Amino acid sequence: MATRACAGDDRAADLSRRYQSIRALSISLAEPLTDADATAQSMADVSPAKWHLAHSSWFFETFLLRDHVPAYENYSEAWAFLFNSYYEAEGPRHARPLRGLLTRPTLRQVLDYRARVDEAIREAMPRLAECCPELLELGLHHEQQHQELLLTDIKHLFSLNPLGVALWPAQPRRRNTLPELRWVEGASGLIEIGAPDHQGGGAFAFDNELPRHSHHLAPHALANRPISNGEWRTFIEDGGYAKATLWLSDGWDWVNREQIAHPLYWRGGKGGWEQFTLSGWRAIDEADPVTHISFYEADAFAAWSGARLPTEQELEAAAQPLDPCSGLQLDQAGPVEPRCPDDGEGLLSLFGNVWEWSGSAYRPYPGFRTAEGAVGEYNGKFMSGQFVLKGGSCATPRGHMRPSYRNFFHPHQRWQFTGLRLAKDC
Amino acid sequence: MATRACAGDDRAADLSRRYQSIRALSISLAEPLTDADATAQSMADVSPAKWHLAHSSWFFETFLLRDHVPAYENYSEAWAFLFNSYYEAEGPRHARPLRGLLTRPTLRQVLDYRARVDEAIREAMPRLAECCPELLELGLHHEQQHQELLLTDIKHLFSLNPLGVALWPAQPRRRNTLPELRWVEGASGLIEIGAPDHQGGGAFAFDNELPRHSHHLAPHALANRPISNGEWRTFIEDGGYAKATLWLSDGWDWVNREQIAHPLYWRGGKGGWEQFTLSGWRAIDEADPVTHISFYEADAFAAWSGARLPTEQELEAAAQPLDPCSGLQLDQAGPVEPRCPDDGEGLLSLFGNVWEWSGSAYRPYPGFRTAEGAVGEYNGKFMSGQFVLKGGSCATPRGHMRPSYRNFFHPHQRWQFTGLRLAKDC
Amino acid sequence: MATRACAGDDRAADLSRRYQSIRALSISLAEPLTDADATAQSMADVSPAKWHLAHSSWFFETFLLRDHVPAYENYSEAWAFLFNSYYEAEGPRHARPLRGLLTRPTLRQVLDYRARVDEAIREAMPRLAECCPELLELGLHHEQQHQELLLTDIKHLFSLNPLGVALWPAQPRRRNTLPELRWVEGASGLIEIGAPDHQGGGAFAFDNELPRHSHHLAPHALANRPISNGEWRTFIEDGGYAKATLWLSDGWDWVNREQIAHPLYWRGGKGGWEQFTLSGWRAIDEADPVTHISFYEADAFAAWSGARLPTEQELEAAAQPLDPCSGLQLDQAGPVEPRCPDDGEGLLSLFGNVWEWSGSAYRPYPGFRTAEGAVGEYNGKFMSGQFVLKGGSCATPRGHMRPSYRNFFHPHQRWQFTGLRLAKDC
Amino acid sequence: MATRACAGDDRAADLSRRYQSIRALSISLAEPLTDADATAQSMADVSPAKWHLAHSSWFFETFLLRDHVPAYENYSEAWAFLFNSYYEAEGPRHARPLRGLLTRPTLRQVLDYRARVDEAIREAMPRLAECCPELLELGLHHEQQHQELLLTDIKHLFSLNPLGVALWPAQPRRRNTLPELRWVEGASGLIEIGAPDHQGGGAFAFDNELPRHSHHLAPHALANRPISNGEWRTFIEDGGYAKATLWLSDGWDWVNREQIAHPLYWRGGKGGWEQFTLSGWRAIDEADPVTHISFYEADAFAAWSGARLPTEQELEAAAQPLDPCSGLQLDQAGPVEPRCPDDGEGLLSLFGNVWEWSGSAYRPYPGFRTAEGAVGEYNGKFMSGQFVLKGGSCATPRGHMRPSYRNFFHPHQRWQFTGLRLAKDC
Repeated sequence: MATRACAGDDRAADLSRRYQSIRALSISLAEPLTDADATAQSMADVSPAKWHLAHSSWFFETFLLRDHVPAYENYSEAWAFLFNSYYEAEGPRHARPLRGLLTRPTLRQVLDYRARVDEAIREAMPRLAECCPELLELGLHHEQQHQELLLTDIKHLFSLNPLGVALWPAQPRRRNTLPELRWVEGASGLIEIGAPDHQGGGAFAFDNELPRHSHHLAPHALANRPISNGEWRTFIEDGGYAKATLWLSDGWDWVNREQIAHPLYWRGGKGGWEQFTLSGWRAIDEADPVTHISFYEADAFAAWSGARLPTEQELEAAAQPLDPCSGLQLDQAGPVEPRCPDDGEGLLSLFGNVWEWSGSAYRPYPGFRTAEGAVGEYNGKFMSGQFVLKGGSCATPRGHMRPSYRNFFHPHQRWQFTGLRLAKDC
Repeated sequence: MATRACAGDDRAADLSRRYQSIRALSISLAEPLTDADATAQSMADVSPAKWHLAHSSWFFETFLLRDHVPAYENYSEAWAFLFNSYYEAEGPRHARPLRGLLTRPTLRQVLDYRARVDEAIREAMPRLAECCPELLELGLHHEQQHQELLLTDIKHLFSLNPLGVALWPAQPRRRNTLPELRWVEGASGLIEIGAPDHQGGGAFAFDNELPRHSHHLAPHALANRPISNGEWRTFIEDGGYAKATLWLSDGWDWVNREQIAHPLYWRGGKGGWEQFTLSGWRAIDEADPVTHISFYEADAFAAWSGARLPTEQELEAAAQPLDPCSGLQLDQAGPVEPRCPDDGEGLLSLFGNVWEWSGSAYRPYPGFRTAEGAVGEYNGKFMSGQFVLKGGSCATPRGHMRPSYRNFFHPHQRWQFTGLRLAKDC
Repeated sequence: MATRACAGDDRAADLSRRYQSIRALSISLAEPLTDADATAQSMADVSPAKWHLAHSSWFFETFLLRDHVPAYENYSEAWAFLFNSYYEAEGPRHARPLRGLLTRPTLRQVLDYRARVDEAIREAMPRLAECCPELLELGLHHEQQHQELLLTDIKHLFSLNPLGVALWPAQPRRRNTLPELRWVEGASGLIEIGAPDHQGGGAFAFDNELPRHSHHLAPHALANRPISNGEWRTFIEDGGYAKATLWLSDGWDWVNREQIAHPLYWRGGKGGWEQFTLSGWRAIDEADPVTHISFYEADAFAAWSGARLPTEQELEAAAQPLDPCSGLQLDQAGPVEPRCPDDGEGLLSLFGNVWEWSGSAYRPYPGFRTAEGAVGEYNGKFMSGQFVLKGGSCATPRGHMRPSYRNFFHPHQRWQFTGLRLAKDC
Repeated sequence: MATRACAGDDRAADLSRRYQSIRALSISLAEPLTDADATAQSMADVSPAKWHLAHSSWFFETFLLRDHVPAYENYSEAWAFLFNSYYEAEGPRHARPLRGLLTRPTLRQVLDYRARVDEAIREAMPRLAECCPELLELGLHHEQQHQELLLTDIKHLFSLNPLGVALWPAQPRRRNTLPELRWVEGASGLIEIGAPDHQGGGAFAFDNELPRHSHHLAPHALANRPISNGEWRTFIEDGGYAKATLWLSDGWDWVNREQIAHPLYWRGGKGGWEQFTLSGWRAIDEADPVTHISFYEADAFAAWSGARLPTEQELEAAAQPLDPCSGLQLDQAGPVEPRCPDDGEGLLSLFGNVWEWSGSAYRPYPGFRTAEGAVGEYNGKFMSGQFVLKGGSCATPRGHMRPSYRNFFHPHQRWQFTGLRLAKDC
């Protein structure tokens, strides 16, 4: 299991250690932000940094402290209303598109709230590690999800400021040679998909990765690496955004309605294409993986290439033998952006560079069951209208990637670090 | 194959006979319509009856007569612009939401156009049956699709007229006893899904039914019959439309945004629920299958029942041994509405009553290839954001149902004759 | 009074004669229409021709026959729901944007309804001419308003048909020389504005023309004629639609949001600008008055000219000495379009060519009172957000123009025969 | 003149003194705000506090320092793009609805910018008072306008925070007895309207108050005081928001579309109606003037009362003899809310309580001319779709009210301190 791979075996001590380091990472990610930076919401899909910091604490406060620590008193009833995300079972909550108007509580107050929750969790840790280690694990993985969102949401906000704000200073460029694109044959026939049952001793997994089940794969091959910025530039120059027959019908509507002509965060500069990064604007590096593309764009590119997107099962099967800690990892605050992988055998860079769009709609596995109680709303209710992404990005925290992980977004969304890898039938 | 099952084997004679009878059915369906009825468009999803009549003729004119009959001259270039539906390769076309403003050409002129095309096809039949029988088949199945749409679109239009217009006179009610709901175990393990390759002698199939391929099914059971109006009434009375936890997140948004509280075409009357039919308003019959429900509603009902929707493969496997001509069939113009099936063994009423929502997103089969040329836009480009429906409805023409058929609509759409059958894991 | 000027003095006979001729004109205007033409609604602002024919009859049926003829029975309660326009006091009514879905009743049935109402009015005329001649007058002027709307609404519908439908055959062009633009000084100081009180023997007037009152005018001059197509072409070529500083802020938003770059119904053709007319597409005649422009466009043109729009009082004062029957008049069915006036002294063509946008917001006169009862909703409730137009157009029926007439539309609307005349301070 | 009434006669010294005190007031109003408070934008109509502080400085920087002080260098070209409001002549600018995403520059940086501008103005004051005192005056009045907006915009933002944020601590209530409503006859016949020409020695006035001109008034009377909260409660209880016939058609659409049932910032509490104030939520005082109502609501209330709204000329004529410094005034930072006037003779509380909706559409005066250059965009381009308000509110800074002042807003807007006074014809 992912967590086992990186941690010891005394569960309480391990949980305690991981709790501290994961919670500390959130703080350090927000460290360069002003109160205003942490408050603004640049579109309905994103949330303020302050909100991420508070909501992930609300999760621990509600499902651990309130539900399992008898003497605990909520920090504030009003805050529970503000920082519930979408749990219908937890009652009414503040409307999502209004999150950016919550100038109060201040960032300082939210940090105090976090400290209060951390202190209470620390005190109750022996009890919690006993009674409900899965909920604690869930809380930590939930926090890690919000760490990635915090970064992508701040990137979106800063991208819209004409002053070109950078979260972190620019790093020297590491120029790499793009490995040649090669096809790697995948497993075919019956394979096992999904996470091992963690009740039975498997590592942590979300409910949507379960149950493990058989799936039949037809013969196919995957590209050894993701598509690069340079290859995407060629697609643009070949008129890819203007050829209706390359696009899904919904995608063609989207391209025309939103006037899409390049990835999100690209702009034409004097010397060619530039992209916005967490360190501000810079020229694209043609060898780096293309990122911030929608499913529609990924699908159109694949059609233009005479290939297709891989299914989620093809990607999972290919990932099973790989080490999820092998790629880029979000270990500490500091510039993260996808980058050209080193050349080598087999599949390169499946973990820790860009989330790879699969061609699979996000639907439940055979035998899927939601968890009991409010946390049962975690995944199942989003299983329509979205597509699965596999792997993990440069902004995914270490310990949060695994072959069975199913990330999911709507096909037009692209503010995450999304990219693509081609597949073809054999 | 479906067509073979109902027809002879001299291909030209068979095609000619089927061409005549299918084309004649379209005319008779439109027979009760005034010029205005045939012109109006009640929402962007539907098309005017006149447009259906013209567009299905444009299909034959363009892909058969223009492309394969040397001397043929198009009836009118301007009409080609008006009656192309969505074929980007065929050039620009009239905007879909404006179809209801085409008061000219008149219904009379459209019928003349049909006669002209029919005459040209009749003359060219020997040549066409030789050179391109698949295109002719495609044209006939295309026409049958538009027959069903013509009926559902007119039903939608008439439902919005406060005067309560009926297409056909009401029929005497055939009161049936609702068969008890029983679970029927389905096949599990590896099964074959999809249509046999018709190049290899199989019956007609659309490209989205191909290629035939292996699929692994987990143990499961299907309900013996669709859910009834009476069962749906219980769902309503139990507050099913108001319990957030039953619904997919997108569905819950839709229910609240559109203020949905019952199936489309239901209204509260003095004596209880009434529904709009092609014969006007009438009291619901509790034993009849519920219809005009969205995927979201079907999914919420299944959750409320402690069950789930079947996958498209589960439904297809169950349908493979059944006779697609066994249920209701659209053989001639006249009142069609779903009705309670007779009791019996096994799965009842899978064909010819209501299209059954599967839980499967509409995506390509492994190895899917679009056809060459403009007809390649037939299915593939719609493979995002929609769900598969299996079986066939009371408004599906005879000869147009088969186990491998994949109908598809967006999850909020409900003006088709849509219903549901429950499934569960074993 | 306008009506007195054209009619005799036996009130019942006069009313009866005018009733017949006005009602007959409506029928003849609709004569070229198919049932579908008369049913379609091309935008929310317009109504189907069938609806105009029925609604104007509903007005007579409701406010004359139902309210003042004891034995009269309504043709149909359901129709009253369908054909009430906006009279809140008359109860709920069919939603305006859905009028185009009323394929039933048919045009034939609506014509029968008209005949039935006409017959009942004919029988009751002596009584009605006695008890409520003002209501009868109101009904006739109301019918005339809908005659003009019927023509402008059909023009809008036909303009959207790519086949280029004409209501009437084209007429030979009468080429006129555009009179030189001259400034004519207007009256200044205190003047009387508004219609003479018709209770006191004045001619018919709507409530919004009352009461007559004093108004102070500063020294000013009006252009002798409306702006021409040729002058508008110069405005376009000078970049008038692209210079923000010429436009009202709301107008500039509208121009950009709607991508406006020329009058409604203009299009670029091979030989220059063409415009859609009730006789189909034809080349613009540069000497004809420009028409189908919004208030925003009129105001921007005036700013570009270094002039301004006249106030409604300036236009009314200038119109008072003129003969309202002097210009074009809608006397019978047949092609009507604005045309270049003959040259002459003073103000040319104020009546019967184009409705002239004034710079006056449509607000109540000092002392304004709405009528008692449902007809009190006739004008007063529209007194926000609109601007006054004066004069009358080529599609205004004879007898329906007078100096005190206050037509009004929203500043972005332009499907009426609208134009402009410049003014300046002296 | 208003300013002369409160200030000395050495122009440079006077301007300098007023510059300092007005600029200082802006700072003190923003003093309780966090960086986040000063950044958020709660709807497109409002602007962030930080933006107001920066934009009013940009005005001085651009039209005074850049245009008239040779050595001056702009603080930042990028900021000019951010803080131009709507001056087309000044080039492209940041989109208004995105102002709330400008988390940078920080509030601290904006205050530095202000200090820099103030220092430059101080140094250049002798020159500026000589060359362009009118522009300096304009800048000061512009700053005062933004002081009022800053307060109303912050009030809107804070009202949406479920935590109930207060800008200032609550004050003890001063309970007053509501003066009886009495009618005061106004001047009739020809009166002079508009500001005296300030080139000719008159006090400062905006271009929209000019030129002074004659206007004819019919006999009428005005209520002695504004409508109170208690009277508005009666309107609500009498079903005023649900009676279509009381409302303008646009207003009725607005009430239904937006589900309006009470003034903005009212909510039902346990003990009756409460309203949000700059000191947080509190019970309404029935004697205080009603505020935060739209023109539509004011007009409906007047109709319900059997009265009407006054015209702007009626209000101006009534205000001419009154002292504009007599009511509440924004002299320093601290709680401001409308309050019940003391009883007395004549018209009470016309200045300094609530802006009073007139029934007059905001249009140019006869002979109106916009100023030369960019400042010519100040008022004229907004002269459509809005209504005039007269008087001044509790949040209007001292020295910024005068009889000829024409405030203007759209008829649905109500986040300003708006109220109404009844009028009637005599």
